[in-house]
This record gives sequence, structure tokens and C-alpha cells, in this order.
Amino acid sequence: MDPDTVRALLESVARKETTIDEAIDRLSHLPFTDLGDAKIDHHRELRCGFPEVVFCEGKSPSQVRSIAREILDKGGVFLGTRASAAHYQAVGQVALDARYFEDSRLVIVDRREERPAVGHIVVATGGTADSSVAEEAAMSAEVMGNRVTRLYDVGVAGIHRLLAYEATLREARVVIAVAGMEGALPSLVAGLVACPVIAVPTSIGYGASLGGIAALLTMLNSCAAGVGVVNIDNGFGAAALASRINHAAVTA
Amino acid sequence: MDPDTVRALLESVARKETTIDEAIDRLSHLPFTDLGDAKIDHHRELRCGFPEVVFCEGKSPSQVRSIAREILDKGGVFLGTRASAAHYQAVGQVALDARYFEDSRLVIVDRREERPAVGHIVVATGGTADSSVAEEAAMSAEVMGNRVTRLYDVGVAGIHRLLAYEATLREARVVIAVAGMEGALPSLVAGLVACPVIAVPTSIGYGASLGGIAALLTMLNSCAAGVGVVNIDNGFGAAALASRINHAAVTA
Amino acid sequence: MDPDTVRALLESVARKETTIDEAIDRLSHLPFTDLGDAKIDHHRELRCGFPEVVFCEGKSPSQVRSIAREILDKGGVFLGTRASAAHYQAVGQVALDARYFEDSRLVIVDRREERPAVGHIVVATGGTADSSVAEEAAMSAEVMGNRVTRLYDVGVAGIHRLLAYEATLREARVVIAVAGMEGALPSLVAGLVACPVIAVPTSIGYGASLGGIAALLTMLNSCAAGVGVVNIDNGFGAAALASRINHAAVTA
Amino acid sequence: MDPDTVRALLESVARKETTIDEAIDRLSHLPFTDLGDAKIDHHRELRCGFPEVVFCEGKSPSQVRSIAREILDKGGVFLGTRASAAHYQAVGQVALDARYFEDSRLVIVDRREERPAVGHIVVATGGTADSSVAEEAAMSAEVMGNRVTRLYDVGVAGIHRLLAYEATLREARVVIAVAGMEGALPSLVAGLVACPVIAVPTSIGYGASLGGIAALLTMLNSCAAGVGVVNIDNGFGAAALASRINHAAVTA
Amino acid sequence: MDPDTVRALLESVARKETTIDEAIDRLSHLPFTDLGDAKIDHHRELRCGFPEVVFCEGKSPSQVRSIAREILDKGGVFLGTRASAAHYQAVGQVALDARYFEDSRLVIVDRREERPAVGHIVVATGGTADSSVAEEAAMSAEVMGNRVTRLYDVGVAGIHRLLAYEATLREARVVIAVAGMEGALPSLVAGLVACPVIAVPTSIGYGASLGGIAALLTMLNSCAAGVGVVNIDNGFGAAALASRINHAAVTA
Amino acid sequence: MDPDTVRALLESVARKETTIDEAIDRLSHLPFTDLGDAKIDHHRELRCGFPEVVFCEGKSPSQVRSIAREILDKGGVFLGTRASAAHYQAVGQVALDARYFEDSRLVIVDRREERPAVGHIVVATGGTADSSVAEEAAMSAEVMGNRVTRLYDVGVAGIHRLLAYEATLREARVVIAVAGMEGALPSLVAGLVACPVIAVPTSIGYGASLGGIAALLTMLNSCAAGVGVVNIDNGFGAAALASRINHAAVTA
Amino acid sequence: MDPDTVRALLESVARKETTIDEAIDRLSHLPFTDLGDAKIDHHRELRCGFPEVVFCEGKSPSQVRSIAREILDKGGVFLGTRASAAHYQAVGQVALDARYFEDSRLVIVDRREERPAVGHIVVATGGTADSSVAEEAAMSAEVMGNRVTRLYDVGVAGIHRLLAYEATLREARVVIAVAGMEGALPSLVAGLVACPVIAVPTSIGYGASLGGIAALLTMLNSCAAGVGVVNIDNGFGAAALASRINHAAVTA
Amino acid sequence: MDPDTVRALLESVARKETTIDEAIDRLSHLPFTDLGDAKIDHHRELRCGFPEVVFCEGKSPSQVRSIAREILDKGGVFLGTRASAAHYQAVGQVALDARYFEDSRLVIVDRREERPAVGHIVVATGGTADSSVAEEAAMSAEVMGNRVTRLYDVGVAGIHRLLAYEATLREARVVIAVAGMEGALPSLVAGLVACPVIAVPTSIGYGASLGGIAALLTMLNSCAAGVGVVNIDNGFGAAALASRINHAAVTA
Repeated sequence: MDPDTVRALLESVARKETTIDEAIDRLSHLPFTDLGDAKIDHHRELRCGFPEVVFCEGKSPSQVRSIAREILDKGGVFLGTRASAAHYQAVGQVALDARYFEDSRLVIVDRREERPAVGHIVVATGGTADSSVAEEAAMSAEVMGNRVTRLYDVGVAGIHRLLAYEATLREARVVIAVAGMEGALPSLVAGLVACPVIAVPTSIGYGASLGGIAALLTMLNSCAAGVGVVNIDNGFGAAALASRINHAAVTA
Repeated sequence: MDPDTVRALLESVARKETTIDEAIDRLSHLPFTDLGDAKIDHHRELRCGFPEVVFCEGKSPSQVRSIAREILDKGGVFLGTRASAAHYQAVGQVALDARYFEDSRLVIVDRREERPAVGHIVVATGGTADSSVAEEAAMSAEVMGNRVTRLYDVGVAGIHRLLAYEATLREARVVIAVAGMEGALPSLVAGLVACPVIAVPTSIGYGASLGGIAALLTMLNSCAAGVGVVNIDNGFGAAALASRINHAAVTA
Repeated sequence: MDPDTVRALLESVARKETTIDEAIDRLSHLPFTDLGDAKIDHHRELRCGFPEVVFCEGKSPSQVRSIAREILDKGGVFLGTRASAAHYQAVGQVALDARYFEDSRLVIVDRREERPAVGHIVVATGGTADSSVAEEAAMSAEVMGNRVTRLYDVGVAGIHRLLAYEATLREARVVIAVAGMEGALPSLVAGLVACPVIAVPTSIGYGASLGGIAALLTMLNSCAAGVGVVNIDNGFGAAALASRINHAAVTA
Repeated sequence: MDPDTVRALLESVARKETTIDEAIDRLSHLPFTDLGDAKIDHHRELRCGFPEVVFCEGKSPSQVRSIAREILDKGGVFLGTRASAAHYQAVGQVALDARYFEDSRLVIVDRREERPAVGHIVVATGGTADSSVAEEAAMSAEVMGNRVTRLYDVGVAGIHRLLAYEATLREARVVIAVAGMEGALPSLVAGLVACPVIAVPTSIGYGASLGGIAALLTMLNSCAAGVGVVNIDNGFGAAALASRINHAAVTA
Repeated sequence: MDPDTVRALLESVARKETTIDEAIDRLSHLPFTDLGDAKIDHHRELRCGFPEVVFCEGKSPSQVRSIAREILDKGGVFLGTRASAAHYQAVGQVALDARYFEDSRLVIVDRREERPAVGHIVVATGGTADSSVAEEAAMSAEVMGNRVTRLYDVGVAGIHRLLAYEATLREARVVIAVAGMEGALPSLVAGLVACPVIAVPTSIGYGASLGGIAALLTMLNSCAAGVGVVNIDNGFGAAALASRINHAAVTA
Repeated sequence: MDPDTVRALLESVARKETTIDEAIDRLSHLPFTDLGDAKIDHHRELRCGFPEVVFCEGKSPSQVRSIAREILDKGGVFLGTRASAAHYQAVGQVALDARYFEDSRLVIVDRREERPAVGHIVVATGGTADSSVAEEAAMSAEVMGNRVTRLYDVGVAGIHRLLAYEATLREARVVIAVAGMEGALPSLVAGLVACPVIAVPTSIGYGASLGGIAALLTMLNSCAAGVGVVNIDNGFGAAALASRINHAAVTA
Repeated sequence: MDPDTVRALLESVARKETTIDEAIDRLSHLPFTDLGDAKIDHHRELRCGFPEVVFCEGKSPSQVRSIAREILDKGGVFLGTRASAAHYQAVGQVALDARYFEDSRLVIVDRREERPAVGHIVVATGGTADSSVAEEAAMSAEVMGNRVTRLYDVGVAGIHRLLAYEATLREARVVIAVAGMEGALPSLVAGLVACPVIAVPTSIGYGASLGGIAALLTMLNSCAAGVGVVNIDNGFGAAALASRINHAAVTA
Repeated sequence: MDPDTVRALLESVARKETTIDEAIDRLSHLPFTDLGDAKIDHHRELRCGFPEVVFCEGKSPSQVRSIAREILDKGGVFLGTRASAAHYQAVGQVALDARYFEDSRLVIVDRREERPAVGHIVVATGGTADSSVAEEAAMSAEVMGNRVTRLYDVGVAGIHRLLAYEATLREARVVIAVAGMEGALPSLVAGLVACPVIAVPTSIGYGASLGGIAALLTMLNSCAAGVGVVNIDNGFGAAALASRINHAAVTA
């Protein structure tokens, strides 16, 4: 609850400009819009630093369209993750300027005039096959106002490829390390740099990768300190965390 | 590899002050001490921002004693995690000023004259039973030079307890949220603040908590963005990550 | 076994109106119809409060059609869950008034003249993507004679959305809380109300949601008391349990 | 938030009897006591129908003692679950009338003059070895004001034992069915009665019972409708849910 | 190794009718046909009581065709399990009298003049949806020379349906109990009869059935003695075991 | 329900020798003794071929003593499995002739004059370390009236050891194959014999044996037909199943 | 890092033929080609004995095409595993002589004039259905310069089939044993031979094979010594390990 | 079966020096000693290259003593793994020269005059805490006649420690890489060397290491080719495999 708003309201009550019933109502009236199936949280930017992002999977195209319309009515940017082509088409009906990135399954509408980019964030991958998840992370981070450097296919099977980019890694304010199979990349990176490392396991691999569980466990058990892990294939989640870290550094 | 050292070395070769065999040797001579069973990584502070921390579990007391002696010979601070009383006694033989914190299983020797504390980091717990893990995080973070605020027993069964401290949470540069059982605390916190949230699952709970796996999964699946997860009961890991974030902010 | 029926039978034996062999036969003759593959349990309404509900998955359309015909011959209501379009068409051949709800995969035939609705039951969801499971619960509950209030997309990423509806929740006689991902909604609700809470995990989420196992474990480990859990995506099961609780309250 | 209290407070502000700063403070001042490690939730009885119950496992005896003293200062009843003998002794130091039930690991202090018991709740077990969990449920339910009937060792290996008590089961307002091994009891009971059934898996069994996971899965997959499941060995959780159902029925 | 054959061979060596090299060769020459990818085990009927049965899944149609031709060249019966339509068509090319049972995925060619049937075996299912697995068991058992009685949809949600057939169950020499969901049927049956019970878990159920793992665990943990478990959906395996038991009884 | 008893009762009703209320009572009066915590099933021998066997784990010594006294009052044999020394001592207080087998954790009291042994059953183990589970099986089978041959340490690491005993295996009416680690023994045996094979996984092995889960899965997935699996370390369960098979053969 | 190259470089620095900046650059310039998404490791043949092999799954056809072109520019052989038809077509655009093996999912371009084959390696399978994985192993091994003998369908259900080929097995320098279902083949082979055995679990089997996890666990728990395990269905991985062993023997 | 022995036997039959019954007996008489519980496989050295090694866990001390006596009667070396102090004492009763290594849990009796050591094998560990498992591997390998180099505490948190020993690694004929926690060491090593790498996961780590399962999965999913995995903490298994590889190279 924003203390200033409450103070203003209470002062208004004290001045009798607002009745008590109105005050009770306003105190319980929070800044979201109720669309029935969905409740759009317009307050989230103030509270958490970025507008509500829409996880499209499991939602019908028409649900996503309604949510997109509502969000764009109130602000200049819409980010939909795990979007299918059908979701994209639905958003396109209310936003002609929507763009779709099929591999990373993102729908983006960005009408902001100014797009400052602070940073920077390095997004690294163990292999080429991890690049669609890495792009979900990189593009989400860019939309959230971060400068991003991509460093793909630097996994542990050829450690010299990673060491060749040690300087790049050391310049980062936060590194997102994306890897499938044995998932060792974040441990290696965390041993090389002093900044925080965000580990993203991917579902790439043979049978006992268990759809990414193997890489996830590797990352949680990293013997190198300074690693935080997000869900399997969750490029967006990594971007959101990296952006918070990166912006915290800016505002510190 | 530090480019300046390499440059100096190469300049010395060019000036014939260093022979080629010496240069080859130095290039491969890295700053660790070989104790046989253990190789102390004296370079880690430069590379990663904090001296090597010793995970004691599985090491014999005499192994830990040797490592502690070596570390204290080269620097002013020793941090041992997952330490038993026997580990503490062994360290005490080479450092009379060693302190032991039984609940959080830490052995600390800190001889630094100046101990600056930047920050701050909030360490929150879902329940009282999570406090030993939380203390491992809080004390480790303090040794690493961070200012820490503790906020214990604010779990979701009584959501008003957490909301009452919303202001404290909002002042943090990073929040460590420690919880067992259903592990929902980090999701809630991440919905209330704009800073990064580090989630620490604990092994507290009834049978289907599966020794903390349930809380771990909850945290990985958080519907709130901005959460990074560490291993079960890994208070130290959370502190190391938080410290990197916190110091990154300072040096930004 | 219904004591009155047994008493009547025994009295008939005592009066020699029924032979002993007839009595033995009747005692073992229970009120179900044998269709070969299926044995329709007409007694279930008396025993358990609602007619047999048909789980369609794994049954062939013709099996479901036979069962539906038999049930409708003996009573006024047919409820088929997990029904495909093919199941619906098969039922439609024997019941022109069958209705199909594709998202929630229900087939309903309801010919009862009077449809009393007691209650009420609140069905809440964490996100919009949980709504198909929630509708399976809500519509099943309505067919079973309960009054239902829907409260969708009130998950923990924006806790104020839930708190805004605290009054609605407090009026419920039982709450069904449906959530995927981290599945924290039931814990929160149970901390706010005094009535029983039924938790339904859904299979919505990124990789480590493990098809709903993560949310399931969260709910089983709830630190808030008063929560009972049903199977993943099992909206019907939640409705059946809620209806028993709600009607128990009525008949108390 | 209790609307009446808010209304009174706002009226007081309107009457200038309360300053705005005082009002802000009170609005954020919630009814819990902060003991540092623990925050006692005195409001819980109003909100959820029963005072805060203390899960002792993982808490130190002195933490439990402090919490017990605080709870007993404000009310007449203390219930500690998963308590060791050391926890009991600590509580005994601040409450001479504390009683300890070793098998069910409960510490109870009950100073209420009137102890009404509504109901009733039937607690059934599959085997004799499940009785310690069943007692945790039964005694917790009694402390919460419910009338309880015990029906132990009526598992599926001898189905006639259960059928012999069908009448008892039918009189219950809610049945708690406790079972280890294959955990089939709740399914059977739910097929015999019309009231809600709470299933409690226990950790009793050979290797592939996986510490109760097998029974837990059985119960979640019950083909009989009307079953809600709680955590493994969680007798208290079952009691809390049963009590909510039972009291809901009373107040309906 | 068949002692009589060895004896005859050795006698032939003693009589100098067979050279030593021939004898060495024959001793290592075992009765299978090598088709390259497959080695047909013609000895299996003697050794294990029934000709080799072909698990088709994972084999190409042409591989299955070659194997079928080879088996039918040497004997009068071919049984293919887990067969697709393509497998059936391939077998049809070498055996016009092949029959295909789509639901149970069996291909059968049976040219034996005499088909004695001993027994009997009762195949029971918990629900109608388990019938395709049950048919795999029942038909396989019949091909193997057993008399089979089917008893479908007698699961625990309506226990009286099972009790009504208690006499049928008691007449069996072995019962195959097939069930998905909570899988309690075998436990119940084993408590009612004195003969061995073979439990077959099926993959029918909601999410936490984990593709049949839940039912499998239930059956392994049965509190009733006398139950042996086979793999999930493995109707054939149950039939093979039942047939061994049934024929053992005959030859005893 | 025994038809003869029912017939006699009904005839008595017809003759007016039994009142209707008495008949109702007797029909629901089943032959077990209620000890409160335990309900002894005296009918089990008639129904299932052997008296109730007591699983001691999880029961208190005094509970086991009461049950043993009750069983011995009605019959001549008591078999307790998973018994600790304390359980044995408690049984010893009511049966001086109780014997305890520490490795196999059995308590046996056998006062029958005649102990016929039919058979036979071969109990084979993969290794010496499996012998305590094998003895649980062998001794239980002997108490149940079976002739048993032991064949220990014939696992797959030296296949010739097993082949040397092929004749012994072929004489069995049923083989119990006990194995830990990779658990391949039952598959091998089933490929060599025509009789049913009961597979018992043991918890012997290195880390990834997962307490016997590895061997359990091996056995469930046996490529050889004719194998039924029981729970990990469940020697008794194997004996009960083998005894049913063996006696079925006798009475066939 | 190759010491000779470093020495030459340093000598050049000493002779002033190379500037210091150039030397720094070259020291960090490692022999891979950066294609953006992919970094081709041309050094791998020197380091690890065989050129980089491309795991195609998860890569786009155009990514694979670029990588193939780059690899073939620098050498004479390209091996792509887990390739789809689309991957094959893309490679075919830059290499008309590419061959595709659909069952084993391999794309091979081999332009080497001399293809020496040392060895040999025996590839054995438990069943015919394992042959596609076995072919991935056999063909990969052949491309890597090994002589291969195939020995398919010699699983444990008919142990005599394996024993008949004991001589072939004993001639191998390394055996690759491929098996699904219960996966016992490697244990058996390791008990018969003195050479190393590489175990490859396959995903062939009924439900509780868990997609190959059962066979994997069997192999890890082998009671026979001398077995190393690779990932489920990972024929290539087995070939790579076998080739290293086979060539190590040659160069010893 | 050894062809020479068979040939000699058959020749003897042909010469009538051996009767047919004697020949049958001898053909089935294989070279093991039957101790009842254990069957000592004296043939294993010929077949598999090293005498039978005894896994002590789960065996009683007296069983191990009998086995040791039998083995030492026939040969000069006894190796017992997973031995407790009690096992050691029992062996000591029959072999005064037995030595016990408590950390690695080995009992060794070695009376061979000549102990040739070929090689070499490098045993590397990720951390100091892995050294007891590494010693089980190193000492077992030495007893089996291999030359061993130890390289401990070279894990991925400080990659320069490993790179400093690259030359040592490159000289090995096989590397055993032992690691707990995230288990990345084998992947790194396999990317640096051309020889085979044996990966040994250890059970060292925080909660989500799942007793070594995390490291096990990492190793199975290695993106570097040439890695074979053994069971968790199975140092002996790695040694046995390494020894086979090492000796294969020698005899090639």
C-alpha cells in the first residue's frame, strides 16, 4: 500500500471531503482491471519495476487479445512469452505493430519513444541448440531496458572457447548462462567472474537429461558460489531477474 | 589470466630479462598452493570477489585444519560451512580466535581490521524452524561485507505479518527468502518488491516435502518474476549470490 | 447393505412367501446393471449422494454411449468428464439434449425439473491459464446442486488482487483453489478464511513444474491448516468433494 | 482486515479524535507479537477458527517455550505437534499442566472451562501400525472441539472388517481415513458413504512404499469421488481440515 | 542343455560315429535360427512351455515379417504383442490367416488343430477403461491354452459389484486383476481368495497417476499377501505368468 | 460370505428358531476379534489359505503381544515378520516356545502336530548379501507348509554357477529369485524354466540402486515372460505368493 | 595449450619479430571459427582424437548447414547425429556426397582417401528392437576408424544365444552392449570377457521402463565389474568411448 | 566353457578312459567352490582378468571370513570392498597380514611376490571431500596391477588448477574423474584429453544433490564424448573398468 495515497485519502476524510464509505471503498479498490478470466495488474510497474508480462501458454488466443488490449490501453509496451502463432495473430488484431519471434516464442509490442538501455548483461550458451532459450532471455532483457551481449556455443567440451572470451565475461554486470545436457557452463563462468550468474537449464539432451532435470540439478549443485537458478527453458525468468540486478546496480 | 601480468611478463621476455623457459613456466604457474588432497585457490578473491570458502562436510578435521592454516597464512579471514564440532576444534588448533556457530554450522576466523558493510540485504524466513539456514545466510553475508536485516517467521499462513514489513522489504537491495514446507515466501516477496529475490528452500516439513524438494520446485516455478533459486538448505550459497549482487550495485 | 430391504426380505422368508434359494439369490443381487464391459452402479446416489459420473478417457465412444443410455434410463442426469468430441457425439446419439463444453471436456445431460442450488462454493484460480480446470470444477459442482462463485486470476504475483476479494472468500462454505506453476494460492486462501479449502494443482508451467507435480507438492506441504488436495487437473474430483462438504453442511 | 475496526478508526479520524499519523500506524499495526525468531499470530482464531498451532520440529526447545508462553498469555489452549520430549519439558517450564503424548508427539495445554464437542468425525485406520498418526489426528480434532470415534485396523486385506462398521461410517459428518502400504482404505470408504473423506497416507511399509509416497499416490488417484488428501503422516493437518468441515456444518 | 541329447551325442562319440570336432561343434550349436537382426529361439517351447512371443514395438514391419515367417515355418502358432496396423499387414503378407485385434494390439496366427484349454483364469478389471489391457491378457492366455473368464468394471468405488462375483473369483486357479488410477483391486481380490493374484497396473488416470506408476506402487505395497506384480499395461506378461501357474497346477 | 452358513441361518429363520433381528445381527457379525487397536481376522485361513500373519514394524511390542495371544488362543501357529528383538521378547511373554531369527527378523510360534510340506519351492539369490531376505522367504514358506530348496549366490557375474544348477531349478514348482544391485537373476531363471518365477528385489547395492528401486525396475521390465514381482526386501510376500501357487498345484 | 606453439611465439617475441600486442592477441586466439551461433572447434581432433561431431537435435537445418560447411572446409569428414531428414537435406546442399541413415539418424560425409580400421569392437544387442541405437554406435565407430562386429538379439531371455557367441565376444578389445527393458545384457557380457564393456540403455519397453531409466539403473548397478555406462539411446557416445579405448590400445 | 578342456574330455571319452556318466558330470562341474551361502568363482581370473572381489556390505563378518579363507587358499590376493571394521577383524582371523583402509573401506591381503604395475591411470577429484572414494579407486587399481597418479581437488570452481595439470592428464592411458556436487569434472577432462574417461559421481553435496544422483546425471549427460559412468561412490567399479582398459592396451 502506497503511504502517500493513504495519507492523502485520510486527510480528505479529515477534511470531510470524502465520506467514510467512500474511503473504505477506495482503500479496498486496488489498481487492477477485472476482465473476468483475467485481472490486469497495472500497479506492477510501480511495485516491481516492469509492466505485467503475459505467459501465453494455456491461455486462449482471445484471452490473450483482451489482455493485450487492456495493457496497451494503459501503457506503451506488451511482452507475451510462450506465444504460439495463434496468440500472435490475436494480438495482431489489436496491435498492428506486434512482432513475433517464432523460435523464442515471444510477441512484442513496443511503442515507447525512449528506450534507455543500461548494463550490460552477457547471455552465454553451452551449445548452438540452446539458442532459442537464450534469445528468449536476451530479447526479454532488451525490452526491459538492458544492454545485452550474446556469447553462444562456449560450452565445456572445448573450454578454450570460453576462456577466449574471459574479458567479455568480466565486463558484465550479470551473466545469464544457458545450457542443456550436463549444464556445467554456469559453474565454470561463476569461477571466472565476480558478478552474479543466472543459470538457465534447457531441455536439450539424450534420454537421461530427463527433459532438463539433469542440467537443473547440476546448476543447483554448483560448487562455484554466486549462482542463482531459474526454471528449465525459462529464458524470460532469467531476463527478469537479470534486469532487476542490473537496474538495482544503476539505482544504487 | 590477468592481461597486465602477461603484458609485464612478455615485456620482460622482450627485454631478455626473463628467459623463455622461465616465461613458459610462469605462464603455467598459477596462484594456488598444493596441499596434496587440497589445492588452495589464493587467486579467488581477485577473480570472484571473496576468498575461498571451505565446505567442511566430507572432509576430515585434519584436512580442514591444513586448509585453514594455509588460508590464514595468506589472508585475514576464514569461513568454514557445514562444519561439525570436530572441524571447529581442528581449526581452533591453528586459530585460537576461531568462533563456532553450532546451529548454522559455521566456523569463522576474522582478523581483518576494517570490515566495511554495504547494503543492505534482507534475510526473511517463512517460519521459525527455518532460522538455522537463515543464520547461515545472514552470518556468511556479514562476513562477506554486507549489511543484513533479519525478518523471521513471516510466512504465508498469516500474510498480514509479511505485509506489515513491506517497507523494510522495499528498502533492500536484495532479499534472501528462506522457506520450507510449501516454500511460497519468495513468490510473495517478489510480487511486492522491485529488487532481486534469492530463494532458499529448506528441508523442514512433513513426508511429502521430500527433504526440501517440494519447496525447491515451488521456488523454481514461481509465477512472480525476479527469483533465483539455490540448493536446499544452502544458506551460504544464497549469501554468496546476494553479496555479488549487492557489491555489483556498489561498484556500478 | 440397506437394513430395511434385508428386513423385508427376511420377513418374507419367515412368512414362507420367499423360498430360501430366492432369498440367497436376492441377497447377492445388488442394484447394478451389467453391460459386460461396464457395470452401472444405480445404487450410488443413495450411497454417496450423486449418480455415477463417467470418466470417459480410455473408454471407446460406443462404451460411453451404452453407459449413458443406461444411466439416463434410470435417472435424469448424466455427467461425463474428460470427454472428447467423439464421446460427445456418441452420447448425442442417445440424448439429443446433450451439451458439450470443449475446454473443460464435459458432456452434460440434465433433465431434472428442479435443480436446487445450495451453498455456496467459491472457485478461485491463480491465473487465467487455469480456467479450463476451474470450469470443470465449477460446472460439475453446479450439476451436483451447488451455488458457485468464480474468482479467477488472483494468484500470488499480485497479492492485492486476492486481498480485494477477501470478503467474497469469507462468505464461502468451501473454497476450491486452482493453481499451476508454484501452486501457492490454496495456502494463502487457507490463511484468510475459516472454511475448508480444496486445492487443485494444474499442469500449467515451465519444465520443472513436472506436469503439475510441483504444484501438487506445494499444496500437500501447505503451512496453512485446512487444505485437502486432489489430483492434478482434477476439477471434477474437487467439485465432488466440495459438494459433499457443502451438502453435509445443509443436512447437518 | 476487519471492516468494522477500519470503520471505527475512520470515524475517529473524522471526529479528529485520532490523528492521521496515528491512523496510518494503526492501519499497519496488525495483531501479532514479535518475539524475534517468531511472530505469534493472535488474530488467527478470528480469521481461521482456531488459535495458532505450533509445529515443533526444527524449532529449538527454547523457541517453543517462548511461543507457548506467549500463546498461553493471550488464550487458554496450546497445541504443539511433532514435539520431542525436550520440547515437552521446555513447555512444562511455563505450563505445569502440559501433557505429552509420546506416540503421537503432541504437547497439549488446555485451560478452557468449556470444551464443547460437535460432530462427529470418524478416524479409521488400515492397520494397527497406523495408530500413532491416527491418534495425532484424533486428539488434535478433540482439542479443536470435535467429537471423535476411532475405528482402527479395518484395512482392505479383510474387507468384511470394514463392512461390519458401515453403519458407524454412515453416521459420520466427515471420515479421516489413515493408511500406509497400498493406502486403499480412503477409496473404499468413499464408495460407502456420502460425507467427505480425508485421506492420510502413512510412512508404514516395505521399500517401494517410498516412505509413504506410494500410499499418497494411491489416495490422490482414488477412483472414488469425495476424497481430499493431506501430507504423509500429517494427522494434525487432517484434523484441522476435518474440524473446518465439521464446524462449517454446525454454523451452516 | 537337454541331458538326453548330450547323452546321445556322447554315446555317438564313444561309438566313433561322431568325430570329436563334430561333437564340439554340436555342443555349441544351439537350436536358434540366426536372421541377422534377430535370433529365433526355437527351443523356448521346450524350455519355457510356450513358443517365442514377439514384442513388435520398436521393430520394423519387415523385421516382424521375417520373424513371423521363421516361427510359422517351425510351428503352428504366432503371437505378436504391441503390434501396429503396419506390423499386422507385414505379417499378413506371409500368413493370410493372421488376425489383428486393434484395441489390444495383438496379431495372432493359430494353425494348431487341437487347442486344449485348462484352467481357469479369471481376468478382472477395476474399470471399463482398463479393458484393452485386460483383453491383451485374456486373449494371450487363451492362445497359450488356458480357459478364461472375464469380469470387468468391478473396482473399489462400488465394492458390492466385486462382492457379487465372489463365487466366480473363488473358482479361479489364478486371478489377473487389472486396474489403473489408485489400483486397489488386486489387494481386495487377494483378501477374498486363496489362489495367486497377478496385478497389472494400467496407465489410465489423472496427472498424478504418473502414467501408471501410482497403480504400480499400490500393487507392490499391497497389504494382502499373495500378489505378484507385472509391468504397467503389460497384459501379455500377466498372461504368461498366469499360464505358467495354471499349467503347473495341471502337471503337478 | 459363506453360502452354507447363510443357508443354515435362513433355514433357521424359516423354522422360526431364529428371530429376524438375530438373523440381521448374525449376518453382519463377522468372525474377527476386536482388540481396539487391532482386529484379528480369524476367518483368513478359510478365505485365503493361511492364518493372519503379523507385520510387526510400526506396532508397539505390547500391541504385538496382544495380537499374538489372541491368534494363539484360536490356532496353533503365529508368524511375525519385520520383528525387532523387543517384539520377540513381548511375544515370548505369552509364548515361551517363540523362536526368533534375527537376520530375517521373524518370530515364529508353531504348535501344530502335523506339518505337511508339499512342493517344492526353490529360493535362489544373486549374492550372499541377499541371504537375509531369502531366509525370510524360505522360512515363511516352510511355516506355510512348503518344501524349500535354497540355492544362494548364483548371480549373473558368473553365469556358470547358475547353469550348474539348471536341473535343480527345473524340478521346482515355483522359483523365488532374490537379487539386489542390477537384479537380473529372475530374468535369467525365467528363461531357463517353465514354472512361474517370483522376483524379490533387495536393497543391497551402491548409491544408484536407490534402496532397491533399481532392482525392482529391472524385474518389472524383465524381457523373459513368467515373472511376478513383489516389494523390495519383501521375502514374506514372495513366500505367500509361492505358497498359494504351490498349494494350488496340489489341490488342482 | 600446445607448448611448442607457445615456445615459438615467445621466441619470436624475444627476436622482436612479434610485438607484444600481437603476442597477447595470439595467445588468446584459439583455433576455432566463430559462426555467431556456433563456434567450430578445429582443434578437437588434436586434443581428443576425432573432429567435432555435431548433435543436430535442437539446431535449425540452416545452423547445421553452416557448421557442416565450415567443418568440411577444414577437413575430410562430417558426422551429424540425431539428424532429421531436414537436417540431411540442408547438409546435402553443401555436400552432394552426404549420406543419411534414417533409423540411426546419422548424416555422414566422408571424403578421406584412407580409412584405416583398427580393432575390433563388438556391438551386441539384447533384442531386435535395439538395433537402431546399435547401428548409431556401430556406424559412428566405423567412421571413427574402428573395425566393428555386430551381434544382435542375444538377450537374457535365451541365454544360450549369447553363450553360442562367447568366442566372438572374447576376441573383442571392447564390447558395446545395447539393451532396453531390463537391460541385463552388459552384466552378463562383463562376466564372460576380460575386456571393457560399454553399456547403452535403450528406451524400448513397457511403462515402468520409464523411457530407459530402468535399463540405465540396471547397468549402473551391474554386479559384474568392468562396465561403463552412457546415456539412454546414446549410441554415438558409446562409439566415441569405445573408439578412445580401442585406439589407446593401438597407440600403447 | 574352455574348448581345450572339453576337447581333452571328449578325447578321453573316445578312448573309453572316461565313462559317459562321468563326462556328463564333468561337463556340468564348473570351477567354483560351494560354501552354502556363497559360491566362490575361482574361474573368474581366467575369464575376466582378476580374481573375485568381495563386496562386504550386507554380508555378515563370518560370511566374509569364510569367503576370504577360500579365496586365499586358492590364490595370493584378497580384496574386500565396503568393509566395516568388523569385516576387517573377521578377515584378520584367517589372514594376519590383512590391512584395513578405513576411509576407503577396503580390506586387502596381497601375498603375491611379483606385483607388476602397468599404466598409467590418473585418478582426479573435484574436491578434497571426494578423496575417500578416489582412494577406493586408486588402491583397488593398484592391487589390480596398475600404476596410478593421484590429482585431487582440481574441480571447476577454479579451472586454472585443472589446466595447470593438463600435461599430467594427457599422459594417462585412462583417467578416473571423481566428483560430487555438480559433477562437471569428467566433462572438462574429456574435452582436454584423447584417452577414455571414467566418471565416478560421489554423494557429497547439499540437499538437491540427492545423494549423488545430481552428479550422476551430469556425467551421463556430458556434452564431451568419451565418458563412461559408474555407480555413485563406486570407486572400485571405476578401478575395475580402468584396469580392463589399461591392460587391454598392454596386451594389444
